[in-house]
Amino acid sequence: MAEPHSVYTPTKRTIPARKPERLSYDVAAVNAVLDEALVCHVAYQVDGIPAMIPTLHVRIGDQLYIHGSTGSRLMRAASENGIPLCIGVTLTDGLVMARTWFNHSVNFRSVIIHGDAVVVTDKDEKWDAMVALMDHVAQGRAEGSRSANKREFAATAMLRIPLVEVSLKVRSGPPGDDEEDLELPHWAGVLPMETVFGDPIPACDLPVPTYIAEHQRSKRLSEVGD
Amino acid sequence: MAEPHSVYTPTKRTIPARKPERLSYDVAAVNAVLDEALVCHVAYQVDGIPAMIPTLHVRIGDQLYIHGSTGSRLMRAASENGIPLCIGVTLTDGLVMARTWFNHSVNFRSVIIHGDAVVVTDKDEKWDAMVALMDHVAQGRAEGSRSANKREFAATAMLRIPLVEVSLKVRSGPPGDDEEDLELPHWAGVLPMETVFGDPIPACDLPVPTYIAEHQRSKRLSEVGD
Repeated sequence: MAEPHSVYTPTKRTIPARKPERLSYDVAAVNAVLDEALVCHVAYQVDGIPAMIPTLHVRIGDQLYIHGSTGSRLMRAASENGIPLCIGVTLTDGLVMARTWFNHSVNFRSVIIHGDAVVVTDKDEKWDAMVALMDHVAQGRAEGSRSANKREFAATAMLRIPLVEVSLKVRSGPPGDDEEDLELPHWAGVLPMETVFGDPIPACDLPVPTYIAEHQRSKRLSEVGD
Repeated sequence: MAEPHSVYTPTKRTIPARKPERLSYDVAAVNAVLDEALVCHVAYQVDGIPAMIPTLHVRIGDQLYIHGSTGSRLMRAASENGIPLCIGVTLTDGLVMARTWFNHSVNFRSVIIHGDAVVVTDKDEKWDAMVALMDHVAQGRAEGSRSANKREFAATAMLRIPLVEVSLKVRSGPPGDDEEDLELPHWAGVLPMETVFGDPIPACDLPVPTYIAEHQRSKRLSEVGD
């Protein structure tokens, strides 16, 4: 699917109250975060009660899909007329240790999405989203496990949110201490953070598939290990 | 501060719609997640518009503190009469690869907090929360950097949310394939995930403090490294 635009149009909800230099509407940069992250936080309201759930997501072109059980609160609420959602996807890249408390920060990339989600009713679209979600968890896994049967397919709900009202906030680089603090006798720098995978814990006697072993290695911190 | 109770009382907002076996109201288990995680997602509404931000948090006893700029949308909205928040804190521990798509899952620990947040106005309480937040990022860092001066103290806002309406959802262990799927020719197991710290990237010539080097090591995956 071709990208319909390369920059999101800012809206009242995606214009920042402060630090505009950290904000981006770049579609490619947003996609990179959505594709790297596995988990998102979804905020919604049911009967006037604010709620939030963490869940898995996957992007296909300019649509985000999140899956869940047809019995979940979110899916039941969405199945009537759709539901407005606010979704946050955050990757933390490092702890920023400044010479002063005040200038401490975190290096991060965070996407916030606003939009009305609808339950996917087209069966082909739903199937494609399920395949994409499996392969988002580990590329090759859709082929590498038994696909959904009729009952399982029916018990799985998939929500679609158009990627239209989207913003990305990024902080990177060294601490930003003020000039007059640079001579303070305190260590300053960044402690990089990354999510890595450990050795697979098998639940069967079959050999670990190549795509899982590779997936594991691709996420190992280059700095880790002696 | 002593724990006022060891189990949270379930409410309409914290009773799960499904999978009750994954839900816990255990205060100690909740605290462990809040203390391990650095970043939370905060959902709120301003002028009827749902919003979400990722930010740092710290727990002191049975209160959660989140910090921000006095100029941020959230802090400005909260400074009037407090503000109802929904906060999510999620740690992902592993990818659960089942023999079937349907039984794939994620091992995770996720805390959801509902509550009315107020801006901390007591200066001692605010100072203590700032110290705790610094030391939550890296134990020893409050002492290891210059504390807030008057201007910086005034520019920092701290919100307090009582830990009263709280739930924890946990999934752990191997995949839960159905009996009839156990003989399928697909690898099944868990790919453990962990957040680790890399080598510090200095922004000064001072030696890396012991508490930062130790912090780094304590978060290294034992399985990583050859």
